[in-house]
Amino acid sequence: MERETKPLDVLTIGEMVVDFISAEKTDTLSNASTFRRYLGGSPANIAVYVSKLGGDSAIIAKTGIGAFGKFLKSELQRHGVTTDYLLMDHRTHTTVIFVSSTAATPDFEEFRSGDYLLRPEEVSEEAISRTKVVHASTFALSREPCRSAVIRAFRKAREMGKLVSLDPNYSRRVWPDQKKAREVISDAYRYVNVTKPSADDARRVFGPDYEPEQYIEMFHDLGAETVVFTMGEEGNLISENGKTTAHVPSRPVEVVDATGAGDAFWAGFLIATLDGNSAERSVLFAREIVERKLTTKGPLPEDIHREEIYQSLKDGQRG
Amino acid sequence: MERETKPLDVLTIGEMVVDFISAEKTDTLSNASTFRRYLGGSPANIAVYVSKLGGDSAIIAKTGIGAFGKFLKSELQRHGVTTDYLLMDHRTHTTVIFVSSTAATPDFEEFRSGDYLLRPEEVSEEAISRTKVVHASTFALSREPCRSAVIRAFRKAREMGKLVSLDPNYSRRVWPDQKKAREVISDAYRYVNVTKPSADDARRVFGPDYEPEQYIEMFHDLGAETVVFTMGEEGNLISENGKTTAHVPSRPVEVVDATGAGDAFWAGFLIATLDGNSAERSVLFAREIVERKLTTKGPLPEDIHREEIYQSLKDGQRG
Repeated sequence: MERETKPLDVLTIGEMVVDFISAEKTDTLSNASTFRRYLGGSPANIAVYVSKLGGDSAIIAKTGIGAFGKFLKSELQRHGVTTDYLLMDHRTHTTVIFVSSTAATPDFEEFRSGDYLLRPEEVSEEAISRTKVVHASTFALSREPCRSAVIRAFRKAREMGKLVSLDPNYSRRVWPDQKKAREVISDAYRYVNVTKPSADDARRVFGPDYEPEQYIEMFHDLGAETVVFTMGEEGNLISENGKTTAHVPSRPVEVVDATGAGDAFWAGFLIATLDGNSAERSVLFAREIVERKLTTKGPLPEDIHREEIYQSLKDGQRG
Repeated sequence: MERETKPLDVLTIGEMVVDFISAEKTDTLSNASTFRRYLGGSPANIAVYVSKLGGDSAIIAKTGIGAFGKFLKSELQRHGVTTDYLLMDHRTHTTVIFVSSTAATPDFEEFRSGDYLLRPEEVSEEAISRTKVVHASTFALSREPCRSAVIRAFRKAREMGKLVSLDPNYSRRVWPDQKKAREVISDAYRYVNVTKPSADDARRVFGPDYEPEQYIEMFHDLGAETVVFTMGEEGNLISENGKTTAHVPSRPVEVVDATGAGDAFWAGFLIATLDGNSAERSVLFAREIVERKLTTKGPLPEDIHREEIYQSLKDGQRG
């Protein structure tokens, strides 16, 4: 079988897990008794969303070879994500995370196995050479050897002139040592071009006492050229090369399901950026995507078409 | 609060886990998408069944402190099992096992964490001194440090003149090194008075080429005084001190749910033995219990009364 070598738009690296989401709406996992399995992990979700938006995506991640690894692989395939760089290892399990289904912040318990065992030498340079963007999240930076694998991918990507993207989605529960986390995240930012901190994440990483503009400056200081600072209902601040260039407000929508909204937003931003749009226009595009996500129960609809989104943008400008 | 020190009938030691059983009937876990949580692990089930039969039981086991550890503790409490010797450790997770729901042999994938981290020094001598029986299964022997914890409990129990019971429920998937397994199981049998090998387990431990009587002899040679050899529809052979003393046939029942049937059987046997019955009569008692289990969807009914079972036995003899 000949290896497919068509170019990729977005290569994500890091956690691909099975999310077991409670059937019951509850803030605490103890109250949940029934769980449904879903493909999960921010990089995996972004790879799927990029593919749904008509982009070519792949993921570098490690799973076990059992039922759950097979499930994740088939989910990727179903969504058209390239599985060439998926590592299924018989010596480990697929990481699973139990999540309570709630409109508030979900309770979760993670059973990490395969995801963090990704080793630096398993990061395919061919994969990086094929892609335009390399994206990762903080979850994968929280443990070795996966941390070094992500750092290596970032370094190689930067050397090859690719766009490097990081979501600093820090959770103290996943990574209790906050000082070490700040250190590692700072190190990773040396390679990062573009980043999407939420206001919550910024507070968790740097402490709660700053203004949005100060947080943005911190991310610039670490090395990011473009910072998209998301503030939920307060909208999004865009800052390029140290200067705030735009504020894109949020529009009121009836939120049906917020799960994965951040990933949908960022997949939209990356796709629009690769289409040659400005950061501001890419955020406008991403806002369209995230609104469709928020108003839909479950994942982003299958039948999203990029051209339709651009059309909505134009219509919106006329309106 | 004063420590309750009433005597125990049965102390089990080893795996207490959350079983996530698929809502869908399927032979392979890959096909299952929805799972319900249950208290699981053979020793935990036996402790619950002993309590349902009006006996006093406790378990020595390790879980995490999160949602699943809490769930297991509340399940034990709900069923009246003493939780004095439950170790909830913040440094680990509760072991979870995904199981396909099927009439055939279930497919499963286990995520072992807390269960096998039980350490020998955590085995309470007070617990052993309080009980009449100490029971464990092979799952707990498959890994250190839990293996040494079980062996220590067995040795102490034997020194104190307690009845020591082992279920040699060997699974190659849980414990791939069959040679080592045979070695460890043999070592454990030095302390064992009474054991319940199924014909399947015997074949898995010693190889497939022997007759029931030969398997029974092997368990005697290892040290067991009483061997209850269960053969499903072929009934049960009872052997004491090297001599087959009875064959108790199985009676045809309409099997609704076989999950946990072996544990229900053994809880019944232990309770009847502690009531002073002969091995044969204890197996007859256990047969009544297992029939109630097999013909019930889900776990053993809550409203089982020991006296009723003895009455059924008498009625059966008259009939």
